[in-house]
Amino acid sequence: MFSENHKTAGVAYPQGFTAAGVRAGIKKNGNLDVAVIYTEKEAAVAGVFTKNLVAAAPVHLSKIVVGTGTAHAIVANAGCANACTGEQGIRDAEKMAEIAAKELNCRADDVIVASTGLIGSNLPMDKMENGIKAAVKELSREGSVNAGNAIITTDTYSKACATEVEIGGKEVRFGAIAKGSGMIRPDMATMLCFITTDADIDQKLLQEALKDATEVSFNMISVDGDMSTNDSVVVLANGAAGNKKIVARDADYLKFFETLKNLCTELAKRIAADGEGASKFLTINVTGAETFADAKKVGMSVANSPLVKTAFFGQDANPGRTICAVGYSGVKIVPEKISIKFGGLTVYDKGLVTKFDENAMRKILAEHDIVVDIELGLGDAQATVYTCDLSFQYVKINADYTT
Amino acid sequence: MFSENHKTAGVAYPQGFTAAGVRAGIKKNGNLDVAVIYTEKEAAVAGVFTKNLVAAAPVHLSKIVVGTGTAHAIVANAGCANACTGEQGIRDAEKMAEIAAKELNCRADDVIVASTGLIGSNLPMDKMENGIKAAVKELSREGSVNAGNAIITTDTYSKACATEVEIGGKEVRFGAIAKGSGMIRPDMATMLCFITTDADIDQKLLQEALKDATEVSFNMISVDGDMSTNDSVVVLANGAAGNKKIVARDADYLKFFETLKNLCTELAKRIAADGEGASKFLTINVTGAETFADAKKVGMSVANSPLVKTAFFGQDANPGRTICAVGYSGVKIVPEKISIKFGGLTVYDKGLVTKFDENAMRKILAEHDIVVDIELGLGDAQATVYTCDLSFQYVKINADYTT
Repeated sequence: MFSENHKTAGVAYPQGFTAAGVRAGIKKNGNLDVAVIYTEKEAAVAGVFTKNLVAAAPVHLSKIVVGTGTAHAIVANAGCANACTGEQGIRDAEKMAEIAAKELNCRADDVIVASTGLIGSNLPMDKMENGIKAAVKELSREGSVNAGNAIITTDTYSKACATEVEIGGKEVRFGAIAKGSGMIRPDMATMLCFITTDADIDQKLLQEALKDATEVSFNMISVDGDMSTNDSVVVLANGAAGNKKIVARDADYLKFFETLKNLCTELAKRIAADGEGASKFLTINVTGAETFADAKKVGMSVANSPLVKTAFFGQDANPGRTICAVGYSGVKIVPEKISIKFGGLTVYDKGLVTKFDENAMRKILAEHDIVVDIELGLGDAQATVYTCDLSFQYVKINADYTT
Repeated sequence: MFSENHKTAGVAYPQGFTAAGVRAGIKKNGNLDVAVIYTEKEAAVAGVFTKNLVAAAPVHLSKIVVGTGTAHAIVANAGCANACTGEQGIRDAEKMAEIAAKELNCRADDVIVASTGLIGSNLPMDKMENGIKAAVKELSREGSVNAGNAIITTDTYSKACATEVEIGGKEVRFGAIAKGSGMIRPDMATMLCFITTDADIDQKLLQEALKDATEVSFNMISVDGDMSTNDSVVVLANGAAGNKKIVARDADYLKFFETLKNLCTELAKRIAADGEGASKFLTINVTGAETFADAKKVGMSVANSPLVKTAFFGQDANPGRTICAVGYSGVKIVPEKISIKFGGLTVYDKGLVTKFDENAMRKILAEHDIVVDIELGLGDAQATVYTCDLSFQYVKINADYTT
């Protein structure tokens, strides 16, 4: 699954979807910045959005579209978040949907809207209008790569995925494009993910599947309860695969859910690995917790520690910082029951930082991918959190974002 | 108050206290690393310690000493935190107290012990023994500066304070030395603060006063619920001022408390200003909250945002990041009621990022001290949080701490 062939097809890999990305002049650097994804056949739509109380205008609008249960298109831009823009922002987001709807010959409330970029600026609507019109003209089965590039900001590459699964004798396809959220922390910039599928599935089940899949994927890279103003994960399911409609939590639903979950996890990992300025990809496995929530809390505490992140950037073996972050996670841990491994090598065991082979550790810390195992010794629950290191480059990127 | 003269006297400014700091070879760079503070007259002792479940050995020991209600001395070292060191760590901390007690001719449970530095290493006890013996020999009224330098790690300077207040016709003196906690965040390194006073005060009231003072000072720079393994704030009150003993929450107590609180606030601000790699000192005033807890939560959310901190480092006016951090603070805010100012200049008002004079803003952001005012428009409660920016230097310092 997730082959390179599929990747170029991305959101247009499922039957009945087309996509495009164009240059509208919204990004200062002149790169692609307006994307449209379209299905002529009406699709069931589901969405998970930021919980930030300062949600951006397009989020307010897209929630209404998800509320109608169906959609035909997604229109998105990068370079301007249309957040903290008040009434004007709402009008501009509505206008984005109206322009797209007119060009696509559908209703405005069938168009999901998303924006990412600088907070507090108004959208340049003339450029936007020209951009949307141009994108609609370019819609094609090959347009996903451009659409993916049109939604990125500080990402070093566009994240795209595609896969298929057999459901009731039919091939059901999935595709997705996503952009990262700066360094992966609750207080970082926007994450956007647009997923398409030709599965035929009840809208309520689609919403439940997306919510559950998000919980164990995007929410494990710390973009959940404390989301940015614009975070949005949206899925369109147009039923073009012709499978028997999924209307209950049966075997077909489980196959659908597993595929969706794996797709989301794959994208979440890529987003974490491409965190701003990242030089390392860290997988934090927490086992032996009493509950999943506890395991996640411990993992997030470690993943969010600047001291842990800078130590891995510096390839510096500093298990004290990791156990320290476990200790203040808010979970009732018992230091004497905990063991911690970096790359399979024990660095902390039952209350003590252990002696380890320094040469072997040097090799582990020189790798790009590093696995941190934390066994709490309290129960059977577990969770895996993904993050990246904290580098000079992160500070540089974020010290002059607006200028 | 807090004059330079007083500062050099520091913890030895109150009557009956002496101090010393020596080189014991525990710090790799050969700097001062063992400190002793002593009062021949028995002192009431109070302490506030880390809530981290992975507390260091000296913290466990010092809590017992505080439990006895009295103390004669504090012995502290930098360079090695004696944390995650198990039984051996407890034995070493006990041994530190025993060595000091023998030299000072007091009981071992009259000696507060503190360590800061690398987590997971055992104390070099030979060096420690020689260091404590040498420090005790050097105890003097002039020794506070050396004691202050002996407890710092990555601080760029030692924090010291001294002041006095008239209580019941007597001059009551206070002195303190403190070290910072890396960049000021819940998951940062150790904060230590040792306060001396010649006030005569009931031990239980002393503990209450210290707890309340800590709540509005050190805990407002984000070293509270999520403290490091070693954080300790300790006060010794030896009664040498000869004031009528404070035994109730009367006018004398209030004078004592106010002075202690101001001293703690002054030190907390200096610690925040000297955060690792800091180039800016940020004061975040949150007003118009429904409760103090809400105001603090909003302030901490802004103060802890890497995006806000890097923007101030880059002298980049980015109000969107500030309102974003307000939005995900967990407090039920209403964006349309909020206004935000940087250096007195409105940057966000009632749901909108506002236009502001860019030249004036450039001047404000070029200053070392920047005040951020956040009015929530919901109630009468307020809180002030202190923090610093996030710079290249922070990453550099923490990327190779152990090496």
